[in-house]
Amino acid sequence: MGTKMDFHTFLTEQVAVLDQKLPDLITSLDSPKILEEAMVYSLNAGGKRVRPVLLLSVLKGAGFPLEYGYNTACALEMIHTYSLIHDDLPAMDNDDLRRGKPTNHKVFGEDMAILAGDGLLTESFSLITRDEHLTTDQRIKLITSISRAAGPEGMVAGQVADMQSEGKQLTPEGLEAIHHRKTGDLLSVSLYAGGIIAGFHNDALIQLSKIGKHIGLAFQIKDDLLDIEGTEEEIGKPVGSDIANNKNTYPLLLGVKGAKEKLDFHLNAAHENLETLQHFDGALLDGLISYIGERKG
Amino acid sequence: MGTKMDFHTFLTEQVAVLDQKLPDLITSLDSPKILEEAMVYSLNAGGKRVRPVLLLSVLKGAGFPLEYGYNTACALEMIHTYSLIHDDLPAMDNDDLRRGKPTNHKVFGEDMAILAGDGLLTESFSLITRDEHLTTDQRIKLITSISRAAGPEGMVAGQVADMQSEGKQLTPEGLEAIHHRKTGDLLSVSLYAGGIIAGFHNDALIQLSKIGKHIGLAFQIKDDLLDIEGTEEEIGKPVGSDIANNKNTYPLLLGVKGAKEKLDFHLNAAHENLETLQHFDGALLDGLISYIGERKG
Repeated sequence: MGTKMDFHTFLTEQVAVLDQKLPDLITSLDSPKILEEAMVYSLNAGGKRVRPVLLLSVLKGAGFPLEYGYNTACALEMIHTYSLIHDDLPAMDNDDLRRGKPTNHKVFGEDMAILAGDGLLTESFSLITRDEHLTTDQRIKLITSISRAAGPEGMVAGQVADMQSEGKQLTPEGLEAIHHRKTGDLLSVSLYAGGIIAGFHNDALIQLSKIGKHIGLAFQIKDDLLDIEGTEEEIGKPVGSDIANNKNTYPLLLGVKGAKEKLDFHLNAAHENLETLQHFDGALLDGLISYIGERKG
Repeated sequence: MGTKMDFHTFLTEQVAVLDQKLPDLITSLDSPKILEEAMVYSLNAGGKRVRPVLLLSVLKGAGFPLEYGYNTACALEMIHTYSLIHDDLPAMDNDDLRRGKPTNHKVFGEDMAILAGDGLLTESFSLITRDEHLTTDQRIKLITSISRAAGPEGMVAGQVADMQSEGKQLTPEGLEAIHHRKTGDLLSVSLYAGGIIAGFHNDALIQLSKIGKHIGLAFQIKDDLLDIEGTEEEIGKPVGSDIANNKNTYPLLLGVKGAKEKLDFHLNAAHENLETLQHFDGALLDGLISYIGERKG
């Protein structure tokens, strides 16, 4: 229990730091006011900050100063946010609400929402490349791994595969392949990026990636379960909307019990892989992994 | 005349190289087939390759091997192409044709067009960050300058300012401020990037930026004039569509004669600034600057 308490304190503390840093990074730009407002609106729309907190937990566990990680952490949240803004567009998922608030295009119009997404994506790389806390070598490694995870071999590929799977019944393996790219790659690279910043050797980086993949799948399975078992207030959207939209989900393909077993499998695998990391205090990440399995929204 | 002949030979030769390299860079990705097709479709849709050729002209003028520049040159074309795909979307300019061909969303649907744009943008940074022809320091400088030029302080800002100016009569200075960001920054950084790759000192880089700004404005004024004076076949869209769409253009604000004088001013300023560059054979860039003023489409 002590561990989990520590994690929740860390989470609350770091979310507060990120909630301040993220809008500051945008409003300090020399950019049209309305564009800044549109970018800040979605950055401030109640995200759980899972990706930045994953990165920061690696630094903390390695006893490394968090200052070195904030820009990259914010860049990851910007990429996540851009992907949500574009996903919600009428031509994509056509969502009016996200986390209980009107989506970006509902407030700012479709044109501005497209540009706010484009702006956040571009600025995320700008932020890392200019980060003087890091060596040029670290910045290159970060942009290489993050652009791969976010781009047409990663998150964008996952979106396309997800679109193409609509109305088709997938196998559990097929669904897993989509989620690896759609959400897993960016979650996984968040840990990996922490390892690059803390100066981990290659073996440890690979280990972090493995943990990240299990966390990514666990995260998605839990999301699917919350769609059935959560409340509208907790999850910020109508309960059962995946079923209504005829989406391929883990409970649909494996049953609720099967999905829960799969969730436990990935959570346990993440915990076990974490134990093999040397010179690393895994308490925070352990707490974060448990949080992913227990969260209500 | 000899100079211009040389430029046209160089242009033809390099366009052929780029026409091969650009699709290869996409089809070699581990990415869904349909996404690759959508990205390649717009990369192959008859672009003049002005940005990559600007970069390559700097390398050639400095006697530097072109091999070192191709990835960055292609990255610039990918960014330009992504911006066109997103611009053409129904929520933005709602264009059905570009360069006489159906726009991306007309062929692949709006959802895929949004993702193809997102994919090209992300991959452009990926390409530079992985480019082993370049030192890590060069890669960082390239991504810093290009992401700034393309992002919410550059091209994306210009798009927003352009949208906001619709239906309003601008001053010539207001129009110039929009074009600096909307098209000028990316054209300008194409020269600047060539300078970084060829190892130019800071003074020469600043000089290249100045030339780039004049080229950017000249390019836009010429575009505006072609909308009035070109033929549909040459410009790949109906003549007079800017006027029909009530757009702020140089001929509208300054008259055709005034716009032509402004075009000549920027072409001359570009030529003159070019002469001050030391240890540099400006013949190709001179040819390119003249080409911008004389092109028919």
